Amino acid sequence: MIQLKIKRNERIAAMTRILCSHPNQIYTLHYFSELFHSAKSTVCEDIAIIRDTLLTFGLGDLESIAGAGGGVRFIPLAEKESTEEYVGNLCNILCDTSRILPGGYLYMSDILYAPQQLCRIGEILAARFLNTRPDFIITVETKGIPVAVMTAFALGCPVVAAKRNGQITEGPSVSINYVAASSRRIQTMSLPKRGIKEGSRALIIDDFMKGGGTARGMVQLLEEFNVDVAGIGVVIATREPQDKMVKDYASLMVLEQVNETDKQIKLSPSTWITVK
Amino acid sequence: MIQLKIKRNERIAAMTRILCSHPNQIYTLHYFSELFHSAKSTVCEDIAIIRDTLLTFGLGDLESIAGAGGGVRFIPLAEKESTEEYVGNLCNILCDTSRILPGGYLYMSDILYAPQQLCRIGEILAARFLNTRPDFIITVETKGIPVAVMTAFALGCPVVAAKRNGQITEGPSVSINYVAASSRRIQTMSLPKRGIKEGSRALIIDDFMKGGGTARGMVQLLEEFNVDVAGIGVVIATREPQDKMVKDYASLMVLEQVNETDKQIKLSPSTWITVK
Repeated sequence: MIQLKIKRNERIAAMTRILCSHPNQIYTLHYFSELFHSAKSTVCEDIAIIRDTLLTFGLGDLESIAGAGGGVRFIPLAEKESTEEYVGNLCNILCDTSRILPGGYLYMSDILYAPQQLCRIGEILAARFLNTRPDFIITVETKGIPVAVMTAFALGCPVVAAKRNGQITEGPSVSINYVAASSRRIQTMSLPKRGIKEGSRALIIDDFMKGGGTARGMVQLLEEFNVDVAGIGVVIATREPQDKMVKDYASLMVLEQVNETDKQIKLSPSTWITVK
Repeated sequence: MIQLKIKRNERIAAMTRILCSHPNQIYTLHYFSELFHSAKSTVCEDIAIIRDTLLTFGLGDLESIAGAGGGVRFIPLAEKESTEEYVGNLCNILCDTSRILPGGYLYMSDILYAPQQLCRIGEILAARFLNTRPDFIITVETKGIPVAVMTAFALGCPVVAAKRNGQITEGPSVSINYVAASSRRIQTMSLPKRGIKEGSRALIIDDFMKGGGTARGMVQLLEEFNVDVAGIGVVIATREPQDKMVKDYASLMVLEQVNETDKQIKLSPSTWITVK
């Protein structure tokens, strides 16, 4: 069989698709070299071109990993400017007063279940916690699951979802009781023992934080597994109470007020999003 | 300011990243032409190169849309061969007898919460239902959510998650009672009225189907909203009962048996995955 020569243009298109669809997954030079029947030096030149282009257009970065298990991986880092603009726009969308629900809740399910929004939100949270090197992401069902999945997609790690009522069909589990800060009621949170490795590191991701009771519950649950907390990230945190049940967390947005009577919503990007 | 000329290699890297990270989202030629300060004819040539490469390597397809709102979009279609191989491997992974849980359940949460597996599963389900042109995906909490999100990501449409116990904090909702085929127990499923448009089309996605009662419940719920069912897709369906409560559905895999006593699992790819 005659092996057709694959041109640089074509190698770049194929490599970009493969790398960008598998964020934070390491591909060896050998893999691409075999795929294209090209020398590793050629593949290195291709990688340099893709990297420069991604950086120029603020579309991400490629990281080269040296050594035997080495290769290259895609990091979906957005530019600071475009992140700030994106989160600002999201605040504007969410501040539409028709989103105020009875009880002073804010309707945001359309955002939390829109894959393209989640993709962007996940990339921003992933970039924030990339250096904490989590082994997996933990969330608690239900609304936190989509954002946890997309953050994990960007980080290239798995997700574990704790259950609220302890109906575990996945074998032996560990449960804790925790106090939801907002309702002051005691609730249960469970995690199957299977699939959690002692001594690993977990990033806690959720959609919303008010008092921090749920996040505190996840921290406690992880302690039972001897798992370190790499960080806590949420999409929206309320300004009040300022004294939350967990100390270190990062939210994309801060919710100051949802006023049912006056039809007012005050929501703004967090300072780490806007500070230069 | 001197405008640097952007080379073909660079345009191809940037376009591939943008298109592949936004499956089924239409980008106009104008958009790329502005981004790169290039003629539309040049952009068209770039698109042709990317398209040929994606097809050659079985990495997807680009579709050109004619007319005023026209442009190009990425369709994450995998080759038949690689899909068959992928689903075959997934069956092998899931047939590990250590996955048998008390009660004859099959442990599959690690797969259903692993973003890279979900990405692939979502692409396969999206390809299966692409031509049915759904406006949104519906699933029911909890385990179906990740696969629904990733299928929606591949299709470029939003997700709506029905709730099981009717605790809707999102304003007025519609509830139905349905019979879970396996337990014969009456359950409730609710959907907020907000966010569902009458006359639209929904694709039902779930992780697992046994009797089809849950899928039937979603069909009934959609009827209340005058929403058409574009299709029903699940990751695993059991062989028995063959007479399920919904007629047309597609599953990636068919589960014939989980035998707790003999430690046996029989799981295979569905015929539409393997038939040439």
